[in-house]
Amino acid sequence: MTLTKTDITEVWEELAWKQDTKIIYLVMDGLGGLPHPETGKTELQTAKTPNFDQLAKQGSCGLLEVVGPGITPGSGPGHLTLFGYNPLKYRVGRGVLSALGIDFDLKEGDIAARVNFATVEKGVVKDRRAGRIETELNQKLAQKIRENVTLDFEGEYFFETVSEHRAVFVLRGQELGGELDDTDPQKTGISPFGIQAKDDASCKSAQLVSNFIQKVKQVLADESPANMILMRGFEKYKPLPQLIHRFGLRGVCVADYPMYRGVSRLIGMDVVPHPGGLKQRFQALQNCYGNDYDFYFLHVKKSDSTGEDADFDQKVELIEKVDGLIPQITDLQPDVLVVTADHSTPATMGSHSWHPVPVLLRAQNARADSVDRFDEYACNQGMLGLRPGTDIMGLALANAGRLQKYGA
Amino acid sequence: MTLTKTDITEVWEELAWKQDTKIIYLVMDGLGGLPHPETGKTELQTAKTPNFDQLAKQGSCGLLEVVGPGITPGSGPGHLTLFGYNPLKYRVGRGVLSALGIDFDLKEGDIAARVNFATVEKGVVKDRRAGRIETELNQKLAQKIRENVTLDFEGEYFFETVSEHRAVFVLRGQELGGELDDTDPQKTGISPFGIQAKDDASCKSAQLVSNFIQKVKQVLADESPANMILMRGFEKYKPLPQLIHRFGLRGVCVADYPMYRGVSRLIGMDVVPHPGGLKQRFQALQNCYGNDYDFYFLHVKKSDSTGEDADFDQKVELIEKVDGLIPQITDLQPDVLVVTADHSTPATMGSHSWHPVPVLLRAQNARADSVDRFDEYACNQGMLGLRPGTDIMGLALANAGRLQKYGA
Repeated sequence: MTLTKTDITEVWEELAWKQDTKIIYLVMDGLGGLPHPETGKTELQTAKTPNFDQLAKQGSCGLLEVVGPGITPGSGPGHLTLFGYNPLKYRVGRGVLSALGIDFDLKEGDIAARVNFATVEKGVVKDRRAGRIETELNQKLAQKIRENVTLDFEGEYFFETVSEHRAVFVLRGQELGGELDDTDPQKTGISPFGIQAKDDASCKSAQLVSNFIQKVKQVLADESPANMILMRGFEKYKPLPQLIHRFGLRGVCVADYPMYRGVSRLIGMDVVPHPGGLKQRFQALQNCYGNDYDFYFLHVKKSDSTGEDADFDQKVELIEKVDGLIPQITDLQPDVLVVTADHSTPATMGSHSWHPVPVLLRAQNARADSVDRFDEYACNQGMLGLRPGTDIMGLALANAGRLQKYGA
Repeated sequence: MTLTKTDITEVWEELAWKQDTKIIYLVMDGLGGLPHPETGKTELQTAKTPNFDQLAKQGSCGLLEVVGPGITPGSGPGHLTLFGYNPLKYRVGRGVLSALGIDFDLKEGDIAARVNFATVEKGVVKDRRAGRIETELNQKLAQKIRENVTLDFEGEYFFETVSEHRAVFVLRGQELGGELDDTDPQKTGISPFGIQAKDDASCKSAQLVSNFIQKVKQVLADESPANMILMRGFEKYKPLPQLIHRFGLRGVCVADYPMYRGVSRLIGMDVVPHPGGLKQRFQALQNCYGNDYDFYFLHVKKSDSTGEDADFDQKVELIEKVDGLIPQITDLQPDVLVVTADHSTPATMGSHSWHPVPVLLRAQNARADSVDRFDEYACNQGMLGLRPGTDIMGLALANAGRLQKYGA
């Protein structure tokens, strides 16, 4: 009843050949939304987006169920999926992504975890982000930890600031397993979880991390509000197959958030260093556009963060702002232009969600459909249909003439 | 790199039972298209097709993404998919298909390859098809090769004319591997590739084929324009599971091109010998319609070849011509009638493409939808939705009452 089935993304690998064509992905993080209860319109439906609408008219539209039905994607899997990496096969923890995002030089076998500075009172988590402390305080505390906490083993640990309350922990040594449960309970009012190994190979790591947390607790005892750390997303680092080897694409990432630069590095893309704010990033895209790259990933973070802040109006405003910058992309005349999202973040929910995201693909041979508006409902009538998130890479490659015929 | 997954086509196998019902597939090769730049209408939208439109109105419509997203199917995988064979599991090379298509009696373990007579000047390919030489010249050259080239091994080779510049090479012997790279560079201006074994088991085959090519080169040295051969699609022949065993269907093929007869034989279908041109094939379908078969595959080639010739108008004309012959099918009153394609061949591209193909299924219990026009855009609104190509066999079987209930 079962058989070994080839993953369609592997067929693309097999068929990919190099061409002198360029693909641009504009990924608007968390773009998908839900209707506002008063107007009945989603963020995208509310926004005035003449440029997106024009692209929708010229291209094929549809909806991506990014990771799968009912699945709310984290940013890591969401992006890997759009890049053609089967998210059920390539699982990367937040720790590894965060470490890559601060240019930390992860080595194969390192165990990385995402850290939050947190506020704990009487053993119970009061604030999972310690009031979003300033990055400077984070740096001071990180240094204090490094200076005062030692682990007695044949290896070393790293504790690095990311920004605000976020940090990265890396354990480096021989034969360490990375299958550890989170200590972050993901809500307040309960105690942090004790560290748990999920397999025998990770028992040593569990002991070391448990020991580390105990010592950090002592070191931070007198601090306020950041008197504790919470850890999650433990994972053993192993680089993923590279985009250039899989699909023959020389990729470059233009993103200002560490996470997205990290995902890009993980698959071997070059990363524009600190491209800056929204306008600067569109400029950075123009600056790096040329002979060095075939695949350009431009990331917009604020469509997600305004959604997470449950700020419908700000999300609408951000969408309109990005719409205004679209000519800077279309002026480059890429062979394939994709506009989509890694997941939905409806402002009405204030969190990531499982809802399919709108997608448009403009290319010379894309089947232009009757959709002339870029939003969730209009895209539901498009020729791309409702499909898994990985599909968009195959379609982008095909439209760029970068996939050979399958079989005779 | 692969994952175990249940294949729905195997569930159909399990549920299939025999019934006194008949299924007709009209496969219009390369039917799917793209809008003409001047009119904005595809070939199907341009053509006057009252009969197809009537069928669309009576049946369920949709789009098939035949092999997968972004994948441009070759004719072999395209057809196998429509017959319910997972194209990622059942891979058949052009060599095997071509050999089967000329009624060559392939035996299990034979290594077959597709051959082109070509023109080479100063070691560089000038014409991959040697000006599409006449079949008679091909036959003369093939005989010259057979008479003058011997291979010193415990086995034998066959070199057979297909038509025009096309021929088949078969290597028969003990323990021969079939994993060989093409020598056909697929473009002009460069040298033919040397023969390469892709695994150790194929080294002996590589030596034999390399030796064969050298000797053929000498034999053809004074010929013009066909002074060289190019080979591709090497494969070791192993018959596929038969249609009768998988789905309980006694199938018959009515096709005038070798390739399609070859695909049909590969899965155990009977083949009407040399049914002739378009009208003759519709007549041949009527002639063989009766108690001997449950599944009828009628193939139309010219919707593909006019597309490949980038001849929009001719493709439109061909579609209209086929539309006029539809009453000859409907007169037979099949229980299930499917009209679709193995892939798109937009005249604007002049080649096979990845675009989904329109499909209609007419049967007593098919959910007739609001689609009353048979084209890519109208079908996008149909009840069958956008789905993988293999699905159509399951739907045809179900509509023919040939699938039992799944579970109690």
